[in-house]
Amino acid sequence: MTTPLAVIILAAGKGTRMKSDLHKVLHPIAGRPMLLHLIDSVSALSPQKVVVLTGAGREQVEAAVAPLGIGTALQAEQLGTAHAVLQARDALDGFAGDVLILYGDVPLVTAATMRRMLGALHAKPRPNAVVLAFRPADPAAYGRVIVGSGDSIDRIVEYKDADAAERAVTLCNSGLMAARADDLWRLLDRVGNDNAAGEYYLPDVIGLANDEGGSAVVVETSADEVAGVNSRAELAGVEAAWQAARRAQAMADGATLIAPDTVWFAHDTAIGRDVVIEPNVVFAPGVSIADGVTIHAFSHLEGATVGEGAEIGPYARLRPGAVVGRKAKVGNFVEMKKAVLGEGAKANHLSYLGDAEIGAGANIGAGTITCNYDGFLKYRTQIGEGAFIGSNSSLVAPVSIGAGAIVGAGSVVTADVDADSLALVRAERQSKPGWAKRFRERMAAKKAAR
Amino acid sequence: MTTPLAVIILAAGKGTRMKSDLHKVLHPIAGRPMLLHLIDSVSALSPQKVVVLTGAGREQVEAAVAPLGIGTALQAEQLGTAHAVLQARDALDGFAGDVLILYGDVPLVTAATMRRMLGALHAKPRPNAVVLAFRPADPAAYGRVIVGSGDSIDRIVEYKDADAAERAVTLCNSGLMAARADDLWRLLDRVGNDNAAGEYYLPDVIGLANDEGGSAVVVETSADEVAGVNSRAELAGVEAAWQAARRAQAMADGATLIAPDTVWFAHDTAIGRDVVIEPNVVFAPGVSIADGVTIHAFSHLEGATVGEGAEIGPYARLRPGAVVGRKAKVGNFVEMKKAVLGEGAKANHLSYLGDAEIGAGANIGAGTITCNYDGFLKYRTQIGEGAFIGSNSSLVAPVSIGAGAIVGAGSVVTADVDADSLALVRAERQSKPGWAKRFRERMAAKKAAR
Amino acid sequence: MTTPLAVIILAAGKGTRMKSDLHKVLHPIAGRPMLLHLIDSVSALSPQKVVVLTGAGREQVEAAVAPLGIGTALQAEQLGTAHAVLQARDALDGFAGDVLILYGDVPLVTAATMRRMLGALHAKPRPNAVVLAFRPADPAAYGRVIVGSGDSIDRIVEYKDADAAERAVTLCNSGLMAARADDLWRLLDRVGNDNAAGEYYLPDVIGLANDEGGSAVVVETSADEVAGVNSRAELAGVEAAWQAARRAQAMADGATLIAPDTVWFAHDTAIGRDVVIEPNVVFAPGVSIADGVTIHAFSHLEGATVGEGAEIGPYARLRPGAVVGRKAKVGNFVEMKKAVLGEGAKANHLSYLGDAEIGAGANIGAGTITCNYDGFLKYRTQIGEGAFIGSNSSLVAPVSIGAGAIVGAGSVVTADVDADSLALVRAERQSKPGWAKRFRERMAAKKAAR
Repeated sequence: MTTPLAVIILAAGKGTRMKSDLHKVLHPIAGRPMLLHLIDSVSALSPQKVVVLTGAGREQVEAAVAPLGIGTALQAEQLGTAHAVLQARDALDGFAGDVLILYGDVPLVTAATMRRMLGALHAKPRPNAVVLAFRPADPAAYGRVIVGSGDSIDRIVEYKDADAAERAVTLCNSGLMAARADDLWRLLDRVGNDNAAGEYYLPDVIGLANDEGGSAVVVETSADEVAGVNSRAELAGVEAAWQAARRAQAMADGATLIAPDTVWFAHDTAIGRDVVIEPNVVFAPGVSIADGVTIHAFSHLEGATVGEGAEIGPYARLRPGAVVGRKAKVGNFVEMKKAVLGEGAKANHLSYLGDAEIGAGANIGAGTITCNYDGFLKYRTQIGEGAFIGSNSSLVAPVSIGAGAIVGAGSVVTADVDADSLALVRAERQSKPGWAKRFRERMAAKKAAR
Repeated sequence: MTTPLAVIILAAGKGTRMKSDLHKVLHPIAGRPMLLHLIDSVSALSPQKVVVLTGAGREQVEAAVAPLGIGTALQAEQLGTAHAVLQARDALDGFAGDVLILYGDVPLVTAATMRRMLGALHAKPRPNAVVLAFRPADPAAYGRVIVGSGDSIDRIVEYKDADAAERAVTLCNSGLMAARADDLWRLLDRVGNDNAAGEYYLPDVIGLANDEGGSAVVVETSADEVAGVNSRAELAGVEAAWQAARRAQAMADGATLIAPDTVWFAHDTAIGRDVVIEPNVVFAPGVSIADGVTIHAFSHLEGATVGEGAEIGPYARLRPGAVVGRKAKVGNFVEMKKAVLGEGAKANHLSYLGDAEIGAGANIGAGTITCNYDGFLKYRTQIGEGAFIGSNSSLVAPVSIGAGAIVGAGSVVTADVDADSLALVRAERQSKPGWAKRFRERMAAKKAAR
Repeated sequence: MTTPLAVIILAAGKGTRMKSDLHKVLHPIAGRPMLLHLIDSVSALSPQKVVVLTGAGREQVEAAVAPLGIGTALQAEQLGTAHAVLQARDALDGFAGDVLILYGDVPLVTAATMRRMLGALHAKPRPNAVVLAFRPADPAAYGRVIVGSGDSIDRIVEYKDADAAERAVTLCNSGLMAARADDLWRLLDRVGNDNAAGEYYLPDVIGLANDEGGSAVVVETSADEVAGVNSRAELAGVEAAWQAARRAQAMADGATLIAPDTVWFAHDTAIGRDVVIEPNVVFAPGVSIADGVTIHAFSHLEGATVGEGAEIGPYARLRPGAVVGRKAKVGNFVEMKKAVLGEGAKANHLSYLGDAEIGAGANIGAGTITCNYDGFLKYRTQIGEGAFIGSNSSLVAPVSIGAGAIVGAGSVVTADVDADSLALVRAERQSKPGWAKRFRERMAAKKAAR
């Protein structure tokens, strides 16, 4: 497609029904603000320009898109969608080409659908506008798209203005539109607000195009794809739809999800083949899982890389920077953060491994903790290949345990341990024969006396 | 409403199909016995008198309602619903006013619906009885409510006595009824048991009222609201309906539930605005969550208060008496019980904090445990503001750590630590160079020799 | 049933759509390979012979069924189902009796349904073949079963050969069949491959039987029972159907499942009466739960036996060999493996108990770890009745703690402790007044200087 493309994303409505201090379009789906899902899809079309229209809470939106090099335009008043689109005119001054009009709160529209819309705009005879329509389960109060011959649109009728025959039409207007820039600005200039609400309606351009002897055509897609978010319940609905599609994809790609409905993916989760995921696993962003990995129930992964054949969980928490080597094991109630666990190494129980590098084949005993923080700075722990860290040990970083070394159970290790050597930090034992019996008798008497 | 109200709750059926030693009406929904859900709703109507009819397992029911000042009456025999209601007559001796007849195993009926029933009882012309009806998805063998003009009831027909036309009626009898006391007792006295089962049927009062020139009217509600519990599967169904409604309410109030179906609320959970709840969070009773709190996946909260902007979990367990201050953090595999975590304080990993008070800004290292129990009594741990507790420390209560103090990793602290001071409990290190290598060789030989 | 029975299970298709190195029929449902579910049901019929037809990946299938004494036959080519069945002929040489034809990837067919098929085969007049049929929600491209008088089958029509009237038939062929051996081999010899695909179709035997004046009859079952597995999504669907049925059974038997959809059973889970299971509990194989047990949320059990009235979780992980005594408690973040917890004993927090025997009434403090592994061998820990293990203790096995003994918090116990005695392993405390304050100032300066 060689025609230049500009994309206008309407995002001025803050979303009162969300009851949130966070702007509606920044509420995340699959761990990523919904607006950025939409911008991801838009990027696949390599647009020359993207303009996000902002209003209330604009600072939040600007801060979210600025790092992507995307500009915003202010929509100071809410006078209807046609008026809103016009607020992008200055930002697109001099732009000649196709314009795609999207909505920040309709985040799941795919690049493929956008391409279909642009394709329709270039079909012969060339229409002045393309409208994306859908057939909802319950058409309710949506505007109806009245189609004439072929895919040409006779008119779009707001529900409240529609007669019985028009209301019986099930094809509804999603609001998304494509048009050439010159057509768009010319037609928008002619849209009036002579209606009950006193608003400038974007769909009016269709009637205006037809009036001047032009045309508009419809492109149809699924209701799921154009689901909008106006409340937290709708947000949950869009999240659920996204997750269902992602789970199906994971299974089609060769992962077993024992209970698919209980696995939550992030927007960027990468999953290999013959991966088994037990019930109740949460993937936050930044996770990559190699082939043949088993992730047991109740595991939570974020920013983690897991090597081939590794075994994770149950109840494992991998935080950003966790790297689990081939055939390594991270067991229950184990947390890893900025920590590398070498090939075949094991940390099976109740451990905290932070800012650590653990060599291949090392064994981290139950209850081991890397003491990586002094209240101000973080320090690293180095554990050599094949080392054995006894249970309940505290490794006070910075510290290095040599390859093949053994640390005795319960040791607090504050200085380096040489390779192949044994380090024990252990006090003498005191024994008081009969003491426990006397204590029990005294305490029982004390409780009785209360 | 100035007419006095008496409420009769039928709860004599123990519920054989539940296969339980616990009385059916005491099985909990959202962490509260179903009978008490019903009594909560009833209380909103400020009744003069509430009588719970009990039979098998009556001691359990009496023990549950006695603390609420609610009396019971014995229904020694199960001779039908009309007979059952009559067993409350003595307890209501001298009462003049409205009577509402409810069922302990139909627990989700709202006060609003009860008010609608009582309102209908006082409409002009005043009927003798009001019947609550519903339209189930599958009317099956329910009694049908045959309505005449307006909302007046011609008759209620048991399914087995109904002809084809009557069976085609979808309006069914819930069993719930309202009537004035004098009407009720007079009509009930005339109900006979001349039917196949030899039982006294409560719906017979409708026919008797019509026969004497009186009338009865219907009030309709949703099938969900009058769902009854006769089996554990139906109990799960009512729980699911309750949870679905509560989740929708939480979202409408401004909480994000990423996966609503995986969040379980208790009957009294209080949730603020802009609270984010990740998948798989369980609220047991007694939890209050302030605005802006994030509750990560796999957290379990009971009897806990969480301050504004705090961060909980994943895998945090807050038990009764846990109080988490503003912007404080409770991380993975951390349990709190009767413990206060001050503003901005952190307990991020693998800790047990019981009977403890932790000052603002304190940092509790991974693996820290308050040793609060000696097998007989519980003791308190006090940690001052800004203190730093090193990882894997054991704080043997009663003990106090002063503000700004530091406890070295792995210390067992048995006596108070002064403010701003460092306490270290640490043994000397023993090193045995080469020992680990020799041990490995010896053990490898031993395993090989087996 | 005295007629001898042979069962042929078709399992030669490896299942390309599974995208797995594991043979399709070995993917587990409820923790057990699907083929073994089917063989379990078959075993209830005490067949004289079972033959599993294998092809690609046959070594995996053979290894799975060999321990059950079940043989396989090679289906070297995939020339259609009729040809496939014929590959079992040699293995059944000399066998006279009934033959049941099943599919390894249709695993949930019950013994009851198989018995119905065999019963139909012996009805008068005796048919030559019995076909198991079902009515799917969407008949799609299934072969249609065209029934004549009674339950006799006129013909089975492949979807692509069916006319409009035949496609309107909703009764579909599952592929499962029963026939007497002599009939089967005779008819199969006559099946040709004169069709578009050039395959030998098993359903052709029906037409052939009718042609020679014989007959075939249909037995109908539910679509769920004959659900086949060709993809991971279908595997998840069959798992879900299995779980739904198992949950309903558990509730009918008197267990409360607060959120049934979030409890996962294994094929052999045994659950008592008045057991309460909170949301999100996973049962891997080998678990037995006695009456009156409560299993709190987020627990994971495998190979564990739990005694009457015990309390498990939340976040408890019981691994194979865990035995929890009557009224004992296993609390949050506690892992047990090959460990016995005596009657009324408690391990409430953050512990690892492996290769251990813990006496009745003992109390295991938070953070206790049995150090059972030296990198080569596992060793046992013995804890006597009523012993009290202080928090954060490390018990270095092999070690024995006597009855009634007390181990002080934070102790590393490397030698036996006598009954009723107190053992303390604790270093001296060092205090450095004001050190923490100076450290803070120094570090703050250091951070500022960066």
